Amino acid sequence: MIEAPRVRIKEERLKQLLEGINQFGRNPSTGGFNRMGFSKADIAARDWLAEVMAVEGLSVHRDAATNVFGRYGPPAGSCVMVGSHLDTVPEGGALDGALGVAAGLECVLALRDAGISLDHPVEVVATSEEEGRFGGMLGSQAIVGDLDPQWLQQATAADGLRLADAMRAQGLDPSLLPTAQRAKGSIKAFLELHIEQGPILEASGLSIGVADRISGVVNWSVKLRGAANHSGTTPMNLRADAFAGLAEVSVAIPKIIRRVGTEYSRVTIGKVDVEPNFPHTIPGTANFSLVIRDNHASAMDALCVALRDQIHATCHAHGLTYTLIEHSRLPPVELDPALAQLLLEEARALGVPHQVMPSGAGHDAQTMQALCPAGLIFVPSRGGISHAPEEWTDWSDIYAGAQLLLNSVLRLAIPSRQ
Amino acid sequence: MIEAPRVRIKEERLKQLLEGINQFGRNPSTGGFNRMGFSKADIAARDWLAEVMAVEGLSVHRDAATNVFGRYGPPAGSCVMVGSHLDTVPEGGALDGALGVAAGLECVLALRDAGISLDHPVEVVATSEEEGRFGGMLGSQAIVGDLDPQWLQQATAADGLRLADAMRAQGLDPSLLPTAQRAKGSIKAFLELHIEQGPILEASGLSIGVADRISGVVNWSVKLRGAANHSGTTPMNLRADAFAGLAEVSVAIPKIIRRVGTEYSRVTIGKVDVEPNFPHTIPGTANFSLVIRDNHASAMDALCVALRDQIHATCHAHGLTYTLIEHSRLPPVELDPALAQLLLEEARALGVPHQVMPSGAGHDAQTMQALCPAGLIFVPSRGGISHAPEEWTDWSDIYAGAQLLLNSVLRLAIPSRQ
Repeated sequence: MIEAPRVRIKEERLKQLLEGINQFGRNPSTGGFNRMGFSKADIAARDWLAEVMAVEGLSVHRDAATNVFGRYGPPAGSCVMVGSHLDTVPEGGALDGALGVAAGLECVLALRDAGISLDHPVEVVATSEEEGRFGGMLGSQAIVGDLDPQWLQQATAADGLRLADAMRAQGLDPSLLPTAQRAKGSIKAFLELHIEQGPILEASGLSIGVADRISGVVNWSVKLRGAANHSGTTPMNLRADAFAGLAEVSVAIPKIIRRVGTEYSRVTIGKVDVEPNFPHTIPGTANFSLVIRDNHASAMDALCVALRDQIHATCHAHGLTYTLIEHSRLPPVELDPALAQLLLEEARALGVPHQVMPSGAGHDAQTMQALCPAGLIFVPSRGGISHAPEEWTDWSDIYAGAQLLLNSVLRLAIPSRQ
Repeated sequence: MIEAPRVRIKEERLKQLLEGINQFGRNPSTGGFNRMGFSKADIAARDWLAEVMAVEGLSVHRDAATNVFGRYGPPAGSCVMVGSHLDTVPEGGALDGALGVAAGLECVLALRDAGISLDHPVEVVATSEEEGRFGGMLGSQAIVGDLDPQWLQQATAADGLRLADAMRAQGLDPSLLPTAQRAKGSIKAFLELHIEQGPILEASGLSIGVADRISGVVNWSVKLRGAANHSGTTPMNLRADAFAGLAEVSVAIPKIIRRVGTEYSRVTIGKVDVEPNFPHTIPGTANFSLVIRDNHASAMDALCVALRDQIHATCHAHGLTYTLIEHSRLPPVELDPALAQLLLEEARALGVPHQVMPSGAGHDAQTMQALCPAGLIFVPSRGGISHAPEEWTDWSDIYAGAQLLLNSVLRLAIPSRQ
């Protein structure tokens, strides 16, 4: 017997909140959204959200990272935090981040409307700069207190804009970022609703995914060096073709995953630059990126070793030399198992088809897990598309995800009710 | 018993002629040469050469394509033509083209100094625009009368400069190009000395190569289209990775050559452009060039069929679509067998180690073969390097090549002496 939810989200209001956020940064000619971290549109969306929260009776706070918080319930005690980020990638979609913020606020408004007395306050959060315009997850890292001062000094966007300058241009003082750190114990749990950004839920015909782990990411750039000779006069067996070497590495990836990886391994060559890049010249240099992900550290390490061995063996066979730079290595994160269990119980109680799954992409929840138990709910991405104007999720799935979020918040905020 | 050559080239003078040409277009900071077709430096080198020829007593003529001719010997009768091109690629080497012109002129000066009476005149030629700045071999094509009026209208350099404008800027009238055509029978034979631009002679320890054939060239550009999804959230088996498809095509090339090619097959992927070209995004599009060469038409056709089949099969396996554009298809050219035989006999008589070999690169000799018997002598390229400041050939090999050229010219210009 499934008990009917005691408080229901208001679907129309959730739609309106989402549309409210998406007034900001929309490109009418593409349908894409442009609220890059610390851009004018990003700040304008935060101003709007803070005002809506205040009008709705929440206690609003904005920290030095321009994370926006709206608190509801008892004035003291550790809070249940719920939300996601407001910033987008360039020409991003309508849901990545914004959905989690709108759903978090709708949960609080539904609780308020129901007049339910909470044991713990609920705090809606709209984090800043999650998409890594400046190379990190600045907002949630500031909350957790995981900001490297040297990185803050150096962090720069792809277009050369420095993080510190981008913040100052919006009237923010980077030197105050440490003040954004929240005290240990002040947050009871963090819950985030997010789109999957991949094709798995859609392919399985499920409405809900509960993330148990978030993949680690290793970020390499590799340069293969051969000899840029004349394509007509150089026999095949006397070539040192850097691109042929890169192709051999690429073709080896599925075999390496079968040998040492898991079903969650993802190895991607996304960026390729060949020199001199003329049709009639054998490539003398091939530069490429290798992004290696798995949700278990041992598999990620094994993939890295096998890929490095492959690059070495390929260079030996093709008469090439190589350099490999590891830009970053983020270990996989296990989200709080008890919280994942609670989300699964509530999904079952709600009667929505669901599964446990790892997250291949990074999210605020993985940062927050260092400070408090963190949980992550996925809803399906139509066609697996994200970071593009076509990004979308059926409303029925969005409502199911938001209701699951609300039911879970209820359980965490009123433990006495269990 | 090897008979000593009856006329000898003057090594010092050949060096000086080469240095004379290479006054023009040299970049002192790189050591490269920049006499691109119809550039100021190219025209200045032609002015200088025409003046040297006139001073040395040759009868000088410059045609509408600004090919420079210097005639020596009887005023009438079909000539033995000897030479190469004066233009270079950007940042080219000291020998590509210039060596053949300097050696051709040295042959005539040596004949003149020896006071030998010729049955046939010898004409030194410095052709124009052989390197294909505007996509053809304009100088020798004009001599042969193989110029397409529509191509002349449209021909454009990579930087957008139109051929017609480049010619007019140097005071040349493109509409007069047809007047450059030489009459059938007016040229008895064409001989060209050129650097190999590849590693074969050096690897074999030989001083001379006699070309019997010049490879055909097929020029394709291919676009593979998949889906540009998130590298973290898209499982390996649900990807349509355009770069993974390209890599599979590249790795198949050696197998295809083993199956349907020859030892002279050359298949090159030189230009690669991936989109969106971000490390964290699976490539949605991969654009690449395929340049396919062989010195037999049947092998070239078989390679094209097998490569097209491979692209088709790879796209099917990876969930990709493709478009393939054939930009050009030049068939292989067989150089005159009797003339190649003559060059081989003279190389043997000279006692220099030599071999017959095909040419992987294109040369004026292949154009000239349409008008008259054409012969092509190679000297080794150090390290196989060409089209670069490092391009070089040992002087001993240069002298051997120039002497072989002279001995062969002698046999052709004084058939009565045989």
